[in-house]
Amino acid sequence: MRDLTLEDIEALAVGAWVLGTGGGGSPYLALLNMRRLYAEGKRVALLAPEELADDDHVAVVSNMGAPLVSQERLADSASIARAVQLMEEYLGITFRAIMSVEIGGNNGVKPLLAAAELGKPVVDADAMGRAYPEAQMTSFAVGDLRPWPLAMVDPRGIEGIVAKVPSWKWMERMARKMCVELGSTVANCKAPRTGAEVKRWGILHTTTQAIELGYAIQAAQREHRDPVAAVLESQRGVKLFTGKVADIERRTTEGFLRGMARLDGLDEDRGRRFELAFQNEWAVGWQDGTPRVMTPDLICVLDTHSGEAIGTETVRYGQRVTVIALPAPSVFLSPRGLDFVGPRAFGYDLDFTSVFPS
Amino acid sequence: MRDLTLEDIEALAVGAWVLGTGGGGSPYLALLNMRRLYAEGKRVALLAPEELADDDHVAVVSNMGAPLVSQERLADSASIARAVQLMEEYLGITFRAIMSVEIGGNNGVKPLLAAAELGKPVVDADAMGRAYPEAQMTSFAVGDLRPWPLAMVDPRGIEGIVAKVPSWKWMERMARKMCVELGSTVANCKAPRTGAEVKRWGILHTTTQAIELGYAIQAAQREHRDPVAAVLESQRGVKLFTGKVADIERRTTEGFLRGMARLDGLDEDRGRRFELAFQNEWAVGWQDGTPRVMTPDLICVLDTHSGEAIGTETVRYGQRVTVIALPAPSVFLSPRGLDFVGPRAFGYDLDFTSVFPS
Repeated sequence: MRDLTLEDIEALAVGAWVLGTGGGGSPYLALLNMRRLYAEGKRVALLAPEELADDDHVAVVSNMGAPLVSQERLADSASIARAVQLMEEYLGITFRAIMSVEIGGNNGVKPLLAAAELGKPVVDADAMGRAYPEAQMTSFAVGDLRPWPLAMVDPRGIEGIVAKVPSWKWMERMARKMCVELGSTVANCKAPRTGAEVKRWGILHTTTQAIELGYAIQAAQREHRDPVAAVLESQRGVKLFTGKVADIERRTTEGFLRGMARLDGLDEDRGRRFELAFQNEWAVGWQDGTPRVMTPDLICVLDTHSGEAIGTETVRYGQRVTVIALPAPSVFLSPRGLDFVGPRAFGYDLDFTSVFPS
Repeated sequence: MRDLTLEDIEALAVGAWVLGTGGGGSPYLALLNMRRLYAEGKRVALLAPEELADDDHVAVVSNMGAPLVSQERLADSASIARAVQLMEEYLGITFRAIMSVEIGGNNGVKPLLAAAELGKPVVDADAMGRAYPEAQMTSFAVGDLRPWPLAMVDPRGIEGIVAKVPSWKWMERMARKMCVELGSTVANCKAPRTGAEVKRWGILHTTTQAIELGYAIQAAQREHRDPVAAVLESQRGVKLFTGKVADIERRTTEGFLRGMARLDGLDEDRGRRFELAFQNEWAVGWQDGTPRVMTPDLICVLDTHSGEAIGTETVRYGQRVTVIALPAPSVFLSPRGLDFVGPRAFGYDLDFTSVFPS
């Protein structure tokens, strides 16, 4: 266990945004909260999953909703901390530590807000290795762990518990409706996990992965090297397309941000087109009409010059971008894993083909 | 406290359906459950509210949703009993007794299902004195009692808790969305009440009122007297219109059954028209285009020949019906009461005028 420095958290915000694959929400607002909490003297410790006892209780937190909404309705640290406390009260347990359900985007930083408020460490792990839009799209669901209960907190004084569900999909359905009624953004504490479950089914060391990725981008920026190349090198990624954003369709619907981005090629891709469909996160990319990359491979759209991520809620006409792919955690590449997060789980009738040789 | 006979419950089903003012769902399906439970040897005791100790815990139950759906997705006694148990588990309390939030319709009989399963008495009271469509339309809300928590149970193994809300309207919003996602019908145990709260803010002796009304209708039917006249006499009601159903518009939307019924006059009303708008319950009636009766006065549409109630989900072309009004509980006639259940609470820009002289 070690205390994270504010520099670590600044780097985490940069790295988590890349791993968000367009979604999870911009980490910038959570970062502002962390700067404030660190200025107040609060500190957050990072706990290696190996340090968890098998019977430790771990809180799994996130902000659920549509990323575009989170840009307008700012989240505070009190709501996510209260969600953790509500779960403790409901189950009559005390959490040893807090972890993120998804390392990607805002939710990569979010557990630190609760951790700083509550004086608990953050586990160096998540359940996606990226961001995904739905509750059943986790390694815990692939592992068939218990999907309930879930606690949610809205700062207007609304608290809800999904006490029991017969499946992860039902958890998604019930929690999503409540989230939509609250305005398509809500702090939640998902089904608690034991230390044993985290060690067996978590995607491990992803907080450290995101911090190192952030440092790699910052170093390249500082040293005037190509930051996109730094991302590819740091994460064993593949460059897919370089272009300019030509068109965006975007709608916030049923608690999600859905739409399509169209890119015109630049440089070596001049004359080519690239299209990206998204449901919070980038889901499938087509080059000149042919599927080129698809979930669960991580599809990241980076600012070509800064190497920093561009989200589905912030992508806009005229941006110069580079589309890259990063390898997915192996748990999602099994037939069962693909049932949860493969292209068909997003409504695309495609057999999964990775850009990475197996 | 006395044991209810099956005859009492048969009469309750008839009387509660009249007090349902078109909504609350047909009590017939709950009655079938009660016949089964009584055949199995179960019995339900009726507890006078005066017998409650001030600090007794009282479970307030109902089936929430759109009446039309409840005709297709049949409710069992286990779900409503489980909702009561879930609330006991959540709060760590033991209920002394069970009461209905609304005496009208199916929900007038529903607490008996939970009571028979759990061996607890039913309180002779409700919080509406009729049926209303929304969670904040109760005497408890008028009394500004605490609106949370609420427990809901779906027989597919889904359990939810609205743990905290800042207002009754927020309770309605959150619970309604969960209800809609479950298919627009769900068993729930609403915010528990103390014995003191029931005695101060409940609408008292409405179970007995519904039973006596049912007996009055049954006696008139048996003795070939006019059952509609028996209803008017039993409940100090007023006859408004006699006619034939000419047209129905009906849609199940957002967890409610909404629409309009149009009647052509018969007998002394020949040549006149009567229109009734509904949101689960009859809300406003117009005679020849002029408002004639409106909530909170109880608007009841009775089968002209049998005197039994016709619900907004069962009303159909060609039925011979008599529209009557019954007086509302006084708690709803104050300015604050009318804020909750007056015509404006249903979206009609009308000042409340009662058909009963004040």
